Amino acid sequence: MKILVINAGSSSLKYQLINMEDESVIAKGNCDRIGIDGHIKHTTFDGRKFEEDCTFPTHTEAFEKLVEVLTTGDAKVLDSMSEISAVGHRIVQGAEIFDKTTLVTDEVIQQIDDLSELAPVHNHPHALALRACKKVIPETTPQVVVFDTAFHQTMPEKAYMYGMPYECYEKYHVRKYGFHGTSHRFVTQALADALGKDIKDLKIVSCHLGNGSSITAVQDGKSIDTSMGFTPLDGVIMGTRCGSVDASAVTFIADKMHLSPKEMSDYLNKKSGFLGISGISSDNRDITDAAEHGDKKAKLAGEMLRYEIKKYIGSYAAVMNGLDAVIFTGGIGENSDDVRADVCHNMEYLGIKLDDSVNNGLRGKLARISAPDSKVEVWVVPTNEELLIARDTKSLVESLGK
Amino acid sequence: MKILVINAGSSSLKYQLINMEDESVIAKGNCDRIGIDGHIKHTTFDGRKFEEDCTFPTHTEAFEKLVEVLTTGDAKVLDSMSEISAVGHRIVQGAEIFDKTTLVTDEVIQQIDDLSELAPVHNHPHALALRACKKVIPETTPQVVVFDTAFHQTMPEKAYMYGMPYECYEKYHVRKYGFHGTSHRFVTQALADALGKDIKDLKIVSCHLGNGSSITAVQDGKSIDTSMGFTPLDGVIMGTRCGSVDASAVTFIADKMHLSPKEMSDYLNKKSGFLGISGISSDNRDITDAAEHGDKKAKLAGEMLRYEIKKYIGSYAAVMNGLDAVIFTGGIGENSDDVRADVCHNMEYLGIKLDDSVNNGLRGKLARISAPDSKVEVWVVPTNEELLIARDTKSLVESLGK
Repeated sequence: MKILVINAGSSSLKYQLINMEDESVIAKGNCDRIGIDGHIKHTTFDGRKFEEDCTFPTHTEAFEKLVEVLTTGDAKVLDSMSEISAVGHRIVQGAEIFDKTTLVTDEVIQQIDDLSELAPVHNHPHALALRACKKVIPETTPQVVVFDTAFHQTMPEKAYMYGMPYECYEKYHVRKYGFHGTSHRFVTQALADALGKDIKDLKIVSCHLGNGSSITAVQDGKSIDTSMGFTPLDGVIMGTRCGSVDASAVTFIADKMHLSPKEMSDYLNKKSGFLGISGISSDNRDITDAAEHGDKKAKLAGEMLRYEIKKYIGSYAAVMNGLDAVIFTGGIGENSDDVRADVCHNMEYLGIKLDDSVNNGLRGKLARISAPDSKVEVWVVPTNEELLIARDTKSLVESLGK
Repeated sequence: MKILVINAGSSSLKYQLINMEDESVIAKGNCDRIGIDGHIKHTTFDGRKFEEDCTFPTHTEAFEKLVEVLTTGDAKVLDSMSEISAVGHRIVQGAEIFDKTTLVTDEVIQQIDDLSELAPVHNHPHALALRACKKVIPETTPQVVVFDTAFHQTMPEKAYMYGMPYECYEKYHVRKYGFHGTSHRFVTQALADALGKDIKDLKIVSCHLGNGSSITAVQDGKSIDTSMGFTPLDGVIMGTRCGSVDASAVTFIADKMHLSPKEMSDYLNKKSGFLGISGISSDNRDITDAAEHGDKKAKLAGEMLRYEIKKYIGSYAAVMNGLDAVIFTGGIGENSDDVRADVCHNMEYLGIKLDDSVNNGLRGKLARISAPDSKVEVWVVPTNEELLIARDTKSLVESLGK
C-alpha cells in the first residue's frame, strides 16, 4: 500500500509518497512559489532528483505537475496514480468540529475552509489544495484529513477556556486549541513503544521545540493541556513568535505604536521571539552561536526558552500529579543537547537525572538520555508527522473497507 | 511611635493610624468620593465611629478632613498631628526606579507621577495624595513610599522579560513588574517567623488570592518570579480580570468587536474573569454559591482558578528545584477552605499532604493546614500590607535618625 501525504501552505505543496509495507519514503518533494511563478524539487528513495521552474497559477497546476513527476520521466516512481491507495492531508485547524482523522467529502472541505478565520495562514490553502487534489487524483482514491488540533480535543474545559467573557468562546470560538498534535501523538506513542509500556500508564510531558514550539501534557494517552493556544502564538518563546505575554502589554504596545489588531498580530507573530529579543536571528543555532560569542541579548533569548520550558514541565507535572517521562523532539529538541541539558539540570526535586555522557552530542535519533537511576525517563524521540498521517490514512481507509 | 498609613486611589483615601509599640491599629477609615462629592467613614480602636458627607474637590480637602477627624471631635485619637512620627504611603508602580522603600522628596513624587503611564489607575492618584499630604501634614513629619513592585525587582531577566521585540522593553518599559509585593513580603516573612526558620533557607510559593490574585516564587527571601506581569492583569483568573490568555486572542477579539486598545484593555480588566465567564459576579463567594446550585459557568470559573493556581505552584517548584512551603493569603486564600483543598489535593508528587480537619472551616487566621508528615508546609497566613508599610516606614525613618 502506497500513501501520498500532502502538507499544503499558501504558496507551497510539500509531499511524501510512503510505502506502508515498510513505512519507507518512496519519494518526496515540494511544489513551491504557487501563485507567484512556480518551482518543483523532487527526490526519490534511490537518489534520483528532479528540479524545474514551472508555472503554478494555483494549487491545481502544482498538483498536476507532481502527478507528472511521480509517474513520468527520469525520477518517476509510479506507473500510474492508481497505484496510490489514498492521500492524507495535514490540516492545521480542525477546531471543535474535528476531533479525529476524517474522510474527505465536499462538506468536510467546506468546513475546513470555513475555519479559515481561526487559522488564516493555513486553512484556506489547505482547502485550495484539497479541491485541487480532487480534480487531479483519480476519483476512486480516498482522501483523508489529519488535524494538528485533533489530539488536543481531549483537554478538559478548565484547561482550554480563557478567563475572557464567555461570548468570546460562544460567539467567536476563542479558546485554547493547541497545535503540533500529530507530532505529540507520534512521539508519545513511540516512547511508550520504546519503553514497552502501555501509553495509558504514563504521565508524559512532550516538548516539541523548533521554529515553533509547543509543550503538551499527555496522561492516559490523551492530551490534557498544551502550551500553544487559540493560535500557535502562545506558550514558550519561539523563532519569531513572542509566546506568553501579559495581555495588557498587547493593548499597551498597540496603543503606543498605533498598530491595528492585524498589525499587532504580525508584530507578535513575525517580529518577536528570538528574532525580536536578539535582533540577530530567529534560528536557535544562530542564537546559540551569538550567545557563545558574548552577545547578551542572544544569551537572554536562549535563557528565556530554557526557563519557560522548565516552568511548563513543572506545571504539567502538577496537573498530572507526577511525571514518568519527558520527551524532546522537533528541530531544537532533537538536535540541541545544550537546551536539553539546561532544562533537565536542577530538576532533582522531580527525580530527573540526565546522563550527560549520552546527551552530549546526540542528534536526531531515538535515545534515552536520562541516567539509569533517574526516576523520570528523559528521551529524544525524532518526530515524523508525515508517517503518522500516512498511518492514520491507512487505518481509516482500511476500516472503511476501501 | 505612631505611623499613619495612606492608601490612595483616584477617588478615595484609605488610612490607618498604627501604634508601633504594639503594632495595634489606633484608628482607620476612608475618605471616599473625592472629586465627586465626598464622604468620610472613621472608626477608632475603642469602637467610636464618625461618618459624614463632605465636600472633597481634591485629595487635599480629604486630607484636611482626616486630620480634623483624627485630632478633634468625639472620635479623635490625637491631640495634634505632631504626635505622628511619619506617614507611609502605598504606591502601586515603582518600575525599575524604586527597588526599595524610599523617603519622599519632591523629585520622588514627580518620578511616581511620571510612572503613571505604566499604572494609569493608580500612580497619578498616589502623586495627588502625596502632594496633598505635603500641604496638610506638618513639614517636619517624614513621608515614606512603599512600592507594590519593589519586592519583585530581584527577579532575574529571564523571568521578567517578554518575548516581544527588545524595543518594547527599551523604549516602552514593557516587562513583568509584578504586584502585591508588600503582601508577599509580609506573609513569607511571617511564615519564616512562625516556622522559626531563616527565610533564606526556604523555597516558598506565596498565593495571594482575592479580587486580584498573584502567586510568587520566593527563594532566599527574594521574589524570583510572579504571576502578575506588566500590569496586574496577567496570571490566574480574577474577579473581573482575564489572567493569562493567548496574545492572539487579544488582537482577534479587538478586531472582531472593533475595540480600540483602551477599550480592549477595559474589556479584559473589567468585564472578564469570574464575572465574564459566569455572567453572575466577580466575587468568589457568589461563584461558589452558584456553582453549588448547579450553575455550570460558575463551576467552570472556580475550576479554572483552582487549576491555574496548581499550575503556578508546579512551575515555581520547577524553577526553585523544590518546594518547602505554600502560603495562602488574601480574601480567597484566607477564607476559602474549598479553594485551598482543591489546590492541594492530588499534589502528592510534591509531598503535599493537607490536614483537611484543620483546613475545613479555617478562616482568616495564621495556621498550618498541612499534615504533620507533609513534606511541604502549607499555611494560611493573613496578610497585613498596612502593617508592613508602617514597619518599613518606621525602620527607614529610624535609620535616617529622625
